[in-house]
Amino acid sequence: MAAQDGGAKMAAWARGVRGLLLDISGVLYDSGGGGGGAPIAGSAEAVRKIKASGLKLRFCTNETQATREKFVKKLQGLGFDISVAEVTAPAPAACRLLKERGLRPHLLVHDDLIPEFAEIDKTNPNCVVVGDAAENFSYANVNEAFRVLIGLEKPVLISLGRGRYYKETDGLKLDVGAYMKALEYACDVEAEVVGKPAKAFFESALAEMGVPPQQAIMIGDDIVNDVGGAQQCGMRAVQVRTGKYS
Amino acid sequence: MAAQDGGAKMAAWARGVRGLLLDISGVLYDSGGGGGGAPIAGSAEAVRKIKASGLKLRFCTNETQATREKFVKKLQGLGFDISVAEVTAPAPAACRLLKERGLRPHLLVHDDLIPEFAEIDKTNPNCVVVGDAAENFSYANVNEAFRVLIGLEKPVLISLGRGRYYKETDGLKLDVGAYMKALEYACDVEAEVVGKPAKAFFESALAEMGVPPQQAIMIGDDIVNDVGGAQQCGMRAVQVRTGKYS
Repeated sequence: MAAQDGGAKMAAWARGVRGLLLDISGVLYDSGGGGGGAPIAGSAEAVRKIKASGLKLRFCTNETQATREKFVKKLQGLGFDISVAEVTAPAPAACRLLKERGLRPHLLVHDDLIPEFAEIDKTNPNCVVVGDAAENFSYANVNEAFRVLIGLEKPVLISLGRGRYYKETDGLKLDVGAYMKALEYACDVEAEVVGKPAKAFFESALAEMGVPPQQAIMIGDDIVNDVGGAQQCGMRAVQVRTGKYS
Repeated sequence: MAAQDGGAKMAAWARGVRGLLLDISGVLYDSGGGGGGAPIAGSAEAVRKIKASGLKLRFCTNETQATREKFVKKLQGLGFDISVAEVTAPAPAACRLLKERGLRPHLLVHDDLIPEFAEIDKTNPNCVVVGDAAENFSYANVNEAFRVLIGLEKPVLISLGRGRYYKETDGLKLDVGAYMKALEYACDVEAEVVGKPAKAFFESALAEMGVPPQQAIMIGDDIVNDVGGAQQCGMRAVQVRTGKYS
């Protein structure tokens, strides 16, 4: 389905389903450097209307430049009705995976994401976790992660999403996927992706919402990570014409 | 053929052929940060013996951290009998390609390589050239190259080699190939590789030496870029056990 402007039309189209998954960056707002950003016209109103309609709503983001707490606080400041408990994001999912498999990560992530890994043992790393590190993707930092990875007997690379790029208020920015590819190539490994478009990530968001995939719609601006990923789970999906689409 | 230590054995094995192509980094010396490096034991002597034997010799390198002039001066300082005219390197080959096709590059390369492109028009870029930029691979610089590339109607990415990594005196370093992959993925393009293992690059080195592929041997430390590339041209090839091999 083609994207349509405005929360009312979206809500109308959503009738007959019980839950919505909403992407955040490029759908609710365009992020900006240094933690800023600008809301997309009509989006805060749309969130309010969706909630008022009685539909279940969950925010499903690949955002990894900040903890969920900090990210949600920023969105609240921009006028959105959103809470931490409503957000599904890659870092907490990665922490569950790390604990389950006894993995100790070397982190190549944004400084502001590090608190999400506070309870994870990071001594003597046996894997690398890469997120949207932005300015932290210096040659020295990327090379350090490469050395850890290639020094492992069985290299494990976990990527928080696999996006190519995203749109900030001052232009397009390379996303984690580009650096995931660089490390994959250098070490001849395939990354395990936590976050969209991974099926397990959508399934986790649906479970948290308590709605089966057939009764849910994903709304995002990325044809691969949002639309493609959701459809592989049996959900319907809408690509909006904001964010990187434009 | 398995690698053998020492120039004498190499020279003996080379009997019956008329020309040798020698890789430099990892074969003659291990490069070091900041333009330093250490010769590999026996290699300067091997070059002298090869030259004394009457075999034709050409140095075939993917080095793009310096102009050929600067690079050769460093090697001479380390005791090698080498001149600029004996070196086949990616930057001059790229300049020929840029001129032939009327391409104006945005350069994502090491500062010390920039003089190689002095005669190339770089205004209003219509392609990106990526080399082993090392510390210049900051997020800001890589993102700038990405923006140029994705802004082109028909994105053209030219990569000076496609190596995964190389060994410096203080450890392994990510090579240009990793960043080539990052840009390829972000922009959904395939890079054109100038340098090893491109067939045209070996053919150019053979032509400069005046020896057909059947009578030439490539000696390098990289199984893909040196050995594989040379074999695709109909040459024999030797992988030494120095450099990144170890």
